[in-house]
Amino acid sequence: MRQVWLPVKELLSGKHEGELVSLRGWIYRTRSSGKIAFTVIRDSTGIIQVTIVKNEVEELESFESARKALMESSVKVTGILKKDDRAPGGFEILASIFNVVDYADIYPITKDQSEVLLRDNRHLWLRSRRMTSILKIRSTVTGAIHDFFRGRGYHEFTPPIFQPNQAEGGSSLFEVKYFDKKTYLSQTWQLYAEAAIFSLEKIYDVSPTFRAEKSRTSRHICEFWMAEMEAAWMDLAEVTEIAKEELKFILARVMERNTEDLKILQRDVTKLMPSLEKPFPTITYTKALEILKDEHGMEVEWGKDLRTLEENKLMESFDTPVVVIFSCMLLSYISVF
Amino acid sequence: MRQVWLPVKELLSGKHEGELVSLRGWIYRTRSSGKIAFTVIRDSTGIIQVTIVKNEVEELESFESARKALMESSVKVTGILKKDDRAPGGFEILASIFNVVDYADIYPITKDQSEVLLRDNRHLWLRSRRMTSILKIRSTVTGAIHDFFRGRGYHEFTPPIFQPNQAEGGSSLFEVKYFDKKTYLSQTWQLYAEAAIFSLEKIYDVSPTFRAEKSRTSRHICEFWMAEMEAAWMDLAEVTEIAKEELKFILARVMERNTEDLKILQRDVTKLMPSLEKPFPTITYTKALEILKDEHGMEVEWGKDLRTLEENKLMESFDTPVVVIFSCMLLSYISVF
Repeated sequence: MRQVWLPVKELLSGKHEGELVSLRGWIYRTRSSGKIAFTVIRDSTGIIQVTIVKNEVEELESFESARKALMESSVKVTGILKKDDRAPGGFEILASIFNVVDYADIYPITKDQSEVLLRDNRHLWLRSRRMTSILKIRSTVTGAIHDFFRGRGYHEFTPPIFQPNQAEGGSSLFEVKYFDKKTYLSQTWQLYAEAAIFSLEKIYDVSPTFRAEKSRTSRHICEFWMAEMEAAWMDLAEVTEIAKEELKFILARVMERNTEDLKILQRDVTKLMPSLEKPFPTITYTKALEILKDEHGMEVEWGKDLRTLEENKLMESFDTPVVVIFSCMLLSYISVF
Repeated sequence: MRQVWLPVKELLSGKHEGELVSLRGWIYRTRSSGKIAFTVIRDSTGIIQVTIVKNEVEELESFESARKALMESSVKVTGILKKDDRAPGGFEILASIFNVVDYADIYPITKDQSEVLLRDNRHLWLRSRRMTSILKIRSTVTGAIHDFFRGRGYHEFTPPIFQPNQAEGGSSLFEVKYFDKKTYLSQTWQLYAEAAIFSLEKIYDVSPTFRAEKSRTSRHICEFWMAEMEAAWMDLAEVTEIAKEELKFILARVMERNTEDLKILQRDVTKLMPSLEKPFPTITYTKALEILKDEHGMEVEWGKDLRTLEENKLMESFDTPVVVIFSCMLLSYISVF
């Protein structure tokens, strides 16, 4: 018979109360006294408390290993699932078997969570609930992009990353030694996409993109994954509608699938949630400048890009994301919450 | 009222026989005499014949433009959809409006389809039915990979492309000038995936991968997209089963969604189709060498990689794809049809 391991999320659902259950994961917190050890176990789906009482485990080894094992040790646990309002999530496992698969060294990330320390230990920091939630949301977002476009008859078309030419300005090109020649890393799929739409008509991609940006902000980064779409026969009005639908689709998917993660990240979605039911307005660049001036007293010279500062102010005048267009171009969708 | 443009595939379905329909696409073939012009129009979904009779179009301009427009000109057509067994796909449109959106120059790809010419005109060659079909199948395959893993609770985890280290041998690393330092392009996600499974447990990706390979075969290429998976707690038997299921899933999806494309590419799937209903066997590397020796008289020194030559021979002994394992490693799945 194959051992069934239940994920923490399933254990916390209440469906298995009173049953003998098995769980595998990593020690998230641990403390013990002479005869009792409390550990909290995490897996990719959540955390749950496991109580190990010296005289109630099947083998003494179970208790000793539970006492010895440090945070992030990997463990396999079997026991009775009991309701316990004091435990995180409202349930705990009273262990009959507590088996340490591998004992971890002292986990280096504790109170000091300076950026330098977290970067040096990025491989371990990934295990934190915060990073796990971020990675899960990221996966939901890319999946939503695939589903959104594929559901509308788009084909995925991935551009070459090695490109002999520049499309977004030479100063931010990364150069690659290509045998005895050189080539560059993709800054956008634009030139390739414009050829491919005459074959596939409606295409999208989610691809790594490279820009040798000197400034480091959350909007300037050297390597990032970019979602792009391109279509034959399409006008600005249609593109704008697709942008809005896409954004709604992604946001709704994240709200639906990552409720727990949004809580862990302490994101307040009370303003965003209801906005998904409303139409997202489209305004012209000129109108955006007017709003900035009239409602926020900000003068922006016509022709200048809107900076984060201005975008944030503009958003104060709306209760939904808003699309800003500029003659034949969709300038940006702005969504600041 | 918004104009409804029907894709060729929809027109050929038979549902609209006798109706006034509109289509947009590109001229695939054209010939005309004094009073009648026949053009075949292609879009991303197929080709259909359009007949333009001088005295039956609404404006003379329609007829003249149909006569003048060369291959790959973009057009919008309105007319009655009629059954015609002589036409490709069994239907034709008798045009009342034939509107050329843009007149193409002479299409440079004709009888000469040498590799050099096709490479020089890759952006135009993409428009061929062959390339369109290949791109569509590629999109189906990557979509199937996403759906397969997501459907089984995997998270998408994309590795950095810039990596400071080598994972698959330094000789095939691509070096990038990274400001005043240097970095390398990803050869695999391995090192990053091994850190991430302790956070997400089950992960997969479809990512660009770079290897400065000197040999150019269909199995050695400098830039390619690779699908990878990694999971905590998983043993070889489970990984092997997932590999088989994944392969079946992808193949079944392509058969289902790309029937037309497989026909255009003249792929015979009569052997592959029924194999999907059968279990795919797992054999050891040692067993593979035995089969090669006993059934095909090929001696391979124990420890050497199987080359395409040997893999092809091995496949003659099976009527399904087969997995070859080597102690704790899944060596390869081989599927040669």
